[in-house]
Amino acid sequence: MRIINDTITINTRGSGDLINITGEISGALDRSGLQIGNLTVFVSGSTAGVTTLEYEPGLIRDIREFYERIAPSEKHYHHDDTWGDANGFSHVRAAFTGPFLTIPFQNGKPLLGTWQQVVLAEFDNRPRKRQLTLQIIGE
Amino acid sequence: MRIINDTITINTRGSGDLINITGEISGALDRSGLQIGNLTVFVSGSTAGVTTLEYEPGLIRDIREFYERIAPSEKHYHHDDTWGDANGFSHVRAAFTGPFLTIPFQNGKPLLGTWQQVVLAEFDNRPRKRQLTLQIIGE
Amino acid sequence: MRIINDTITINTRGSGDLINITGEISGALDRSGLQIGNLTVFVSGSTAGVTTLEYEPGLIRDIREFYERIAPSEKHYHHDDTWGDANGFSHVRAAFTGPFLTIPFQNGKPLLGTWQQVVLAEFDNRPRKRQLTLQIIGE
Repeated sequence: MRIINDTITINTRGSGDLINITGEISGALDRSGLQIGNLTVFVSGSTAGVTTLEYEPGLIRDIREFYERIAPSEKHYHHDDTWGDANGFSHVRAAFTGPFLTIPFQNGKPLLGTWQQVVLAEFDNRPRKRQLTLQIIGE
Repeated sequence: MRIINDTITINTRGSGDLINITGEISGALDRSGLQIGNLTVFVSGSTAGVTTLEYEPGLIRDIREFYERIAPSEKHYHHDDTWGDANGFSHVRAAFTGPFLTIPFQNGKPLLGTWQQVVLAEFDNRPRKRQLTLQIIGE
Repeated sequence: MRIINDTITINTRGSGDLINITGEISGALDRSGLQIGNLTVFVSGSTAGVTTLEYEPGLIRDIREFYERIAPSEKHYHHDDTWGDANGFSHVRAAFTGPFLTIPFQNGKPLLGTWQQVVLAEFDNRPRKRQLTLQIIGE
């Protein structure tokens, strides 16, 4: 049994940017040579999240509209009074989305569905350089 | 330390079906013979989720009403224009619920609360045959 | 590779209490002496959750207001008819927040962002004594 920590950096374009990182995950598994185990994606930071979805333009618009509806960017947030950076909505969206995902793999392949991609969700109100840990445990 | 991947298949009845899979999890732990470690449940697919809740009829109705309120099934979704399968709401619900759960275990038992069951949430608008991976890491 | 299960108890003040448990997590990692791996926090119970956020008073108010907006405490829930304990809203909030978090660590330190703290979210309508498992896997 081995543990490997990979770090990847993703440049985002700010709020609403959804980035398909499935290729990075498959690449890290290939490099590891491990056959069975799991991979955890973790984004360091409190204004981004990680989840899975079918990565197609219609759904990407739906997801953006969903987040805008339940945690509007135009609303006033108390957090904005603290720092003046106007990204209270980003923090709220990130907190209930969650910063991580653990995916089992077998025969060196992640056990995702055919239409299920791993996505980094940028919620911050400006472009960010995101650090993600891809941690693999397996044999 | 060992890793075991179990696969289970669950037939669902479509949107709003919440299925208690705690028994399947305990069964997989029993079969493994492992005493300490964790079990990850992962559902392959982008229109289902996994979480924990107190599995009783009143709360099941509450959960259905909650999802209907924050991601209505009658609303129009851009995803529906892409494929014409009218399940945009299912994808949105799945994306923020998440497809997985990791539960620590000790003495071969999952460390769940007394009223805390593991539940597969079907969000799709038709019955599905769901593939779940139950991955156990432990000793 | 080793597995360690730590249990910690946290006294909460009821609904809306957000408790920073980052210090407990760093402490458990320090005691383990492990350098690389991951730590899973899991709260036993169906009316609490675990997530990460920037732990500052403005955002804490925002998070409370967000939960109140999407799963109001004053609404009637069918769960309340089952047990008469009036905490249906607590169960709904917990179900979609999730009871756990897995954080990779390296050089004995959790790979959190600078402003990213690990938080126990109490959703129940009364003070609770919460049992959390901190499970560390690593070497």
